[in-house]
Amino acid sequence: MAFRFPVRIYWEDTDAGGIVFYANYLKFFERARTEWLRSLGVGQHDLKERTGGMFVVSETSVRYLQPARLDDELLVTAELQEAGRASLVIRQRALLQPGGAELAAGTIRIGWVEAATLRPARIPAMILEAMKQ
Amino acid sequence: MAFRFPVRIYWEDTDAGGIVFYANYLKFFERARTEWLRSLGVGQHDLKERTGGMFVVSETSVRYLQPARLDDELLVTAELQEAGRASLVIRQRALLQPGGAELAAGTIRIGWVEAATLRPARIPAMILEAMKQ
Amino acid sequence: MAFRFPVRIYWEDTDAGGIVFYANYLKFFERARTEWLRSLGVGQHDLKERTGGMFVVSETSVRYLQPARLDDELLVTAELQEAGRASLVIRQRALLQPGGAELAAGTIRIGWVEAATLRPARIPAMILEAMKQ
Amino acid sequence: MAFRFPVRIYWEDTDAGGIVFYANYLKFFERARTEWLRSLGVGQHDLKERTGGMFVVSETSVRYLQPARLDDELLVTAELQEAGRASLVIRQRALLQPGGAELAAGTIRIGWVEAATLRPARIPAMILEAMKQ
Repeated sequence: MAFRFPVRIYWEDTDAGGIVFYANYLKFFERARTEWLRSLGVGQHDLKERTGGMFVVSETSVRYLQPARLDDELLVTAELQEAGRASLVIRQRALLQPGGAELAAGTIRIGWVEAATLRPARIPAMILEAMKQ
Repeated sequence: MAFRFPVRIYWEDTDAGGIVFYANYLKFFERARTEWLRSLGVGQHDLKERTGGMFVVSETSVRYLQPARLDDELLVTAELQEAGRASLVIRQRALLQPGGAELAAGTIRIGWVEAATLRPARIPAMILEAMKQ
Repeated sequence: MAFRFPVRIYWEDTDAGGIVFYANYLKFFERARTEWLRSLGVGQHDLKERTGGMFVVSETSVRYLQPARLDDELLVTAELQEAGRASLVIRQRALLQPGGAELAAGTIRIGWVEAATLRPARIPAMILEAMKQ
Repeated sequence: MAFRFPVRIYWEDTDAGGIVFYANYLKFFERARTEWLRSLGVGQHDLKERTGGMFVVSETSVRYLQPARLDDELLVTAELQEAGRASLVIRQRALLQPGGAELAAGTIRIGWVEAATLRPARIPAMILEAMKQ
């Protein structure tokens, strides 16, 4: 079961083609990942303050299938596809509401790093455990 | 009584100063104005399709009082300060939750234009009536 | 030989991690594609007005290798990797200046569509010819 | 004499109204301020590393007079309007090229703060001197 998070389309999200600017789906995907972590009790700002570590995105791969427009409501999903010690692959989709037509889909690889040095490090066990469930 | 709309701070909203990039408050203010209109039965995309008109922002004046940070939750307000035939002035504030500390405050003047020509036009009466109540 | 375009990093491009927000590389890549087209005599706004068509991005795949920071200067490249009748694949890289360390690299698939309907159409021959040279 | 910096309009800058999204003029203004400082030998990233201080925007007031569109070239100006010990007011304009039609104009107040605490502090004398000339 994927985590689901609603995203509304505002003027800021669109471009002169009359549709959502494709780069913005990466923002929508990240909002959903952030809320997924939050729903598991993981706040990223707190985590950075406490552990000195943070997630950084190391790879993104997205297909844009149908455009979204101003005022559209999307449901954005996030689910764990692959879990390593230092990085995770999250599968994500943006679905138009109502109906669920797939607008964009892709995978995002996030790695854990020390915030000060940006060096890769092991993902804290509690996060990994929470996400695997 | 001002309309109120919650806004969550994500990575996309912050800058290397560790705080919300000031230009983004204009986005938060617009989301609140959009949801306010929607709550009055006014969808901007529909309206543009139907009347050929749209709101454009003609003036913004904002004071940034305290910074917001990643994961913060804001309450953004919108209320009518001044109503003319072709333009409105909306007063808006961003308040940190919980507590309500004022982070940013300002006024936004929006004018009604024909979408094709961008020429000023009279605000449709039904919108004006709805906003005045 | 790839087309090359310089991009400077401003506050707007960074996030609270102190580095460039990854989604913004898609913007840098697009600026380079746009300037590449412009250098070939192809202005996208003019083209849309004249032919009723425009490019839309249908697939993006990017690896983020090293972070960029405020005030960094990047050189962004663009070169044709694959050319079909209705879509092109552009290979792009962001290189730190001076030195040329690779910060991000990927491929962007762009398809030609009728602007009004967003239906796929054949890429105008003059664009295709210009890009292949 | 105002400092002048060219800005090109890309897809990322526009919205579904077919014009530049108004909030983005704040970004253009900031690019011009940053390049102005750089032309005076002041790099903001270096400065933050060296002095532990940075500028933050505390007030923005902008009027949007005419729209800019995809592929337009703008000249953005910056000049000192008012200089205090802890804050400056910069007057800025965005002018369409060629011709110089005024698209947007406003004032930006920036204050100097300690980066770690965000507390107001005195602007380093060398910056103030350089900007006054």
